[in-house]
Amino acid sequence: MNSVIPSYLMDEWWTPASGEGSPILDASTGEIVATANVSGIDIPGAIGYARTVGQAALGALTFHERALKLKELAQYLNGRREELYAISAKTGATSGDSMVDIDGGIGVLFTFSSKGRRELPNSNIVVDGPPEVLSKDGSFLGQHIYTRLPGVAVQINAFNFPVWGMLEKFAPAFLAGVPTIVKPATPTVYLAEAAVRMMAGSGILPEGSLQLISGSARDLIDHLDYRDLVGFTGSASTANALRSHPNVVHGGVRFTGETDSLNAAILGPDAVVGTPEFDAYIKSLVTEMTVKAGQKCTSIRRAIVPATIVDEVIRAAGARIRERIVVGDPRAEGVTMGALVSREQKDEVKARVRELVAAGGEIVLGSLDEPEVRRADGSTGTAPDGAFMQPVLLHFADALVAAAHTIEAFGPVSSVIGYDTVEEAVALAALGGGSLVATVATHDPDVARTVIEGIAAHHGRTLILDRDDARSSTGHGSPVPHLIHGGPGRAGGGEELGGIRSVFHHMQRTAVQGSPAMLTAVTGQWFAGAPRNLDGPHPFRNSLAELRIGDAVASPLREVTLDDITAFANSTGDTFYAHTNEEAAAANPFFPGIVAHGYLLVSWAAGLFVDPEPGPVLANYGLENLRFITPVSPGDSIRVTLTAKRITPRETDDYGEVCWDAIIHNQNDEIVATYDVLTLVAKEA
Amino acid sequence: MNSVIPSYLMDEWWTPASGEGSPILDASTGEIVATANVSGIDIPGAIGYARTVGQAALGALTFHERALKLKELAQYLNGRREELYAISAKTGATSGDSMVDIDGGIGVLFTFSSKGRRELPNSNIVVDGPPEVLSKDGSFLGQHIYTRLPGVAVQINAFNFPVWGMLEKFAPAFLAGVPTIVKPATPTVYLAEAAVRMMAGSGILPEGSLQLISGSARDLIDHLDYRDLVGFTGSASTANALRSHPNVVHGGVRFTGETDSLNAAILGPDAVVGTPEFDAYIKSLVTEMTVKAGQKCTSIRRAIVPATIVDEVIRAAGARIRERIVVGDPRAEGVTMGALVSREQKDEVKARVRELVAAGGEIVLGSLDEPEVRRADGSTGTAPDGAFMQPVLLHFADALVAAAHTIEAFGPVSSVIGYDTVEEAVALAALGGGSLVATVATHDPDVARTVIEGIAAHHGRTLILDRDDARSSTGHGSPVPHLIHGGPGRAGGGEELGGIRSVFHHMQRTAVQGSPAMLTAVTGQWFAGAPRNLDGPHPFRNSLAELRIGDAVASPLREVTLDDITAFANSTGDTFYAHTNEEAAAANPFFPGIVAHGYLLVSWAAGLFVDPEPGPVLANYGLENLRFITPVSPGDSIRVTLTAKRITPRETDDYGEVCWDAIIHNQNDEIVATYDVLTLVAKEA
Repeated sequence: MNSVIPSYLMDEWWTPASGEGSPILDASTGEIVATANVSGIDIPGAIGYARTVGQAALGALTFHERALKLKELAQYLNGRREELYAISAKTGATSGDSMVDIDGGIGVLFTFSSKGRRELPNSNIVVDGPPEVLSKDGSFLGQHIYTRLPGVAVQINAFNFPVWGMLEKFAPAFLAGVPTIVKPATPTVYLAEAAVRMMAGSGILPEGSLQLISGSARDLIDHLDYRDLVGFTGSASTANALRSHPNVVHGGVRFTGETDSLNAAILGPDAVVGTPEFDAYIKSLVTEMTVKAGQKCTSIRRAIVPATIVDEVIRAAGARIRERIVVGDPRAEGVTMGALVSREQKDEVKARVRELVAAGGEIVLGSLDEPEVRRADGSTGTAPDGAFMQPVLLHFADALVAAAHTIEAFGPVSSVIGYDTVEEAVALAALGGGSLVATVATHDPDVARTVIEGIAAHHGRTLILDRDDARSSTGHGSPVPHLIHGGPGRAGGGEELGGIRSVFHHMQRTAVQGSPAMLTAVTGQWFAGAPRNLDGPHPFRNSLAELRIGDAVASPLREVTLDDITAFANSTGDTFYAHTNEEAAAANPFFPGIVAHGYLLVSWAAGLFVDPEPGPVLANYGLENLRFITPVSPGDSIRVTLTAKRITPRETDDYGEVCWDAIIHNQNDEIVATYDVLTLVAKEA
Repeated sequence: MNSVIPSYLMDEWWTPASGEGSPILDASTGEIVATANVSGIDIPGAIGYARTVGQAALGALTFHERALKLKELAQYLNGRREELYAISAKTGATSGDSMVDIDGGIGVLFTFSSKGRRELPNSNIVVDGPPEVLSKDGSFLGQHIYTRLPGVAVQINAFNFPVWGMLEKFAPAFLAGVPTIVKPATPTVYLAEAAVRMMAGSGILPEGSLQLISGSARDLIDHLDYRDLVGFTGSASTANALRSHPNVVHGGVRFTGETDSLNAAILGPDAVVGTPEFDAYIKSLVTEMTVKAGQKCTSIRRAIVPATIVDEVIRAAGARIRERIVVGDPRAEGVTMGALVSREQKDEVKARVRELVAAGGEIVLGSLDEPEVRRADGSTGTAPDGAFMQPVLLHFADALVAAAHTIEAFGPVSSVIGYDTVEEAVALAALGGGSLVATVATHDPDVARTVIEGIAAHHGRTLILDRDDARSSTGHGSPVPHLIHGGPGRAGGGEELGGIRSVFHHMQRTAVQGSPAMLTAVTGQWFAGAPRNLDGPHPFRNSLAELRIGDAVASPLREVTLDDITAFANSTGDTFYAHTNEEAAAANPFFPGIVAHGYLLVSWAAGLFVDPEPGPVLANYGLENLRFITPVSPGDSIRVTLTAKRITPRETDDYGEVCWDAIIHNQNDEIVATYDVLTLVAKEA
């Protein structure tokens, strides 16, 4: 078992021609798992391959096609989880920890697949925001668009979540159409390699869309430029070195970092002993200390609690640790906290704890002694060849000691800090200098508002924990793919995930100025002022195969009488005075007298634009951006123009969405109302 | 006239206790205009003042209140433009140039005032995107919000647009609620000072919201941290030095840069001599070479034209320059191109031109000789005390010469480069390594699409110039406040303006997780699942003064009969088969048979929730996010629940907007439809 872990470059597996690798040890037993060596690896070749072959292969697919591939990949990996779990155990991870890493990573693929198809067009350009009309006559518009970056997304990952860390960066890059090169952390690279081996073996990946460097690659950034981005997770010191690289500072490489973070959990003043919030808080604190042996960038490092109940918090946490936590080899039955990733890491964490103690922290739970552990064979005792630690809780009598807010012990270590007022708790949380996540446990809306307003700008994510969400919450420490992950300052200043937001991190936003016709040509979306095709058949006769952007129907005028308005009021029950009482209506600042219901206008417009016989248009599933501009009085007439604006064929159905621009005019050609009509249309007639 | 230009610190004017300043010269005459000296200035004091007094004063205002102040400031400055124009002339700017700078800057204030009130809530927190439902039972949600950065926005500006450059950074910071410290470029600091003097004198600015450092301040970034941001415009070398500062690399200062840019203008293959596009292109090229004597980061530096008509382009540009361009003192009648900002700058530009020539560029229009200029007194001749240059056009026979794409001569200098195919033109544009803006002059939609798709990711802004927008276009070189300004790579990697996008650059995006009730408390917006108040009066009886988020009305059920559907079809004309033909409707994949019109459902819902008598609810002005979920068959019944979701009182009207959450259920409590109803409601009953 002394083999060098291969890298995956240019769609082939690669190992160095000669030379032993550096050994990587099992976290619990100290046995050699594999070795790492990438000497002679062709980094420029890999980057060039991504920029050419990878970009071409991904660019041949639409967002929806790529999203579907993510789902296929997720399903493929889902069927092979047990194999990954077995490998993951070698990293010291319990099956619970592995679930976070492996199932969590697969979950990111599923979420991005689903969001990609629901929230992105089935094309390659995203239109961002509404058009800006830049000339009075409407002949000159501005529209922001997103197009993918023309380079490669390099991810440099931490050791703690080799699968999730890879997939949470891969999914948005892939969906954006940007090829990925993964550089995992060496201590757990064999697990990342196993996952990449499955993905490559699945046959699902387009050429050049994923490459893997299974070892140290210090010159990686030397070959990148402004077309590329680097997503880094790890220590602040490494992040700073990378961020100072000339290609970042001068060359415009986009760099996003997720680094140290002394995340706080504030126990609200209302969440006293005996409340559901107190119990949920203690549970969360112990979970965050012990999951992944505390080797989580999102763990709670600072428990900021009312000074009056510091002792109760320590007592309750201690009771829960004694009751729930069994330290040992993850392969042993009943173990709930595994090993740290390596003995070096264990020494590192202990050194940090000693610094915290030297700065005034008192160890109130656990100690730095070797713990009694449960070994894989079921026996119990110390296991100095493994990287085991006891959970350690410190207490700082002086809440303002800098060390408590700046020294991160990246293991099962937290500090309890007391506060007197909510404002003080907010200020203490901010002493972290920017964090990934903070919890406030409270059932008091005022406390929640005060705390969140005070700490939001210092955090990427916040969690309000109370009796209503304690059971359904995904937890303090769990980034979810829907929400951003990252934070300002010490947390690295990065932003990942957040649903489609992270796809846009892999794209360039560009303002495009031009005439409506040209913006239509560039974006594939119809803009008001661009030509309409009124000469074809009724556009409801066109299947998706036939329908073109700009296909339109213009109705004749139809007069609205007072009787129509009265009848509509009576049949719908909408007898609002503006439709029924001339005198009261005229007193309204916006109406000249009785006016037609807005709902009458859009209902009539549907009657004016509809082609009633069965055909490719299957259903009206909704409506967007309806604005009533000019009131319609009895005796006025209305006409409607309906124009195909956006066409989104579905990959997995025999129909798709068509969004129609609708505009209602009156007999004086004034605009009465504008809106978008949403329909489902069959692909074939 | 040898006075030291004062700085504006902590709401007071400040000059150094002693010492002469460095002289700043009139660009056209070489006379001393003023001197600069800030030795002994209290930078940490200014930053501390902004973080405390400035943050507090701005935080006491809502977005709308701040937006209104921007309008007042714009009006105040608008009435004092002549004074600024007179000062601006000393910088070498013609009145046309000054209009870009001064009126352009004031225009940014107006635009942000208007957008702030139309596109932001009248509060201090912005809700970003829809909520993410994170638990099956709906008890746990995630919502992204923006809150302002808790620090200071430092702007370090270029010499070329002292007013616009200041106001385009100030407006979004101010609107976000973040205090500004301005550090103008020394050669034109006296104009920025004049503008700040007006703003400070207006009495409109909240305490601490604007400070000015009228000179060099090299240690500025030493005092900043992750709460602050720096917006830099200037040379790439200075940007790189700032970006390498430990407080940026390690400390998390947010840095946005706008630097060198070799902007391209591509003449499409269809835009041959005689087309309106050719004429518009030549006009734009000459404008961009000569406005502000070419000292614009957005100027056209590379004219990428079909190789076959290079000579025609040069000839036409030459003819237009001879016809239109009069170089001279801006105070002289008829001058259309003024001086460069300083003789040092002139020497610098000439040095760059010599490098371009050495690299193979041939000067085909103009020369580096001192031009004949029109002096202020109307006389003509050379004026070596002024910083005058001739417009210079170069031609590169070899399109791939690196210098043509990398050396920026920041003056009235452009290069003509020939291309053979559109793909080649795209590749040439990308050789700029990331630019602020590119134009493509074409009336061919395919050319437009190919070029924009190819170059978008290398640019912050692109312009499609054709016969339809040539007259209404705001032009290649003019950033507009609605659209982003910035670009990747060599252009600095920054993004400014873009409407409210740039307000968000001054805010932190944070994901907030919690129960619907807690998210409602934190954001001031009602979330589905939060408590409703159904016990009060009908919510339409509440004025804005009385209405609270969550105030709601729930209707009884109303049965929908086939007769109702038929009557609705006949009265509206919407006889779509799904409402009129049982057999055809049943064949539709989404319907069980005849179903009620969606428009019938929302019309009836209005009848069910309306309170018809005159009251504070004045009008329904629109509707958003309507989705039909469950079809309604004859015999089904519907009921509606309407809940106050978002309340936006207007500052300048006696009413405001109320957005209501509407949800229609059927008799089985299934969701039939969801939407938002938009109304105008009076502030007082």
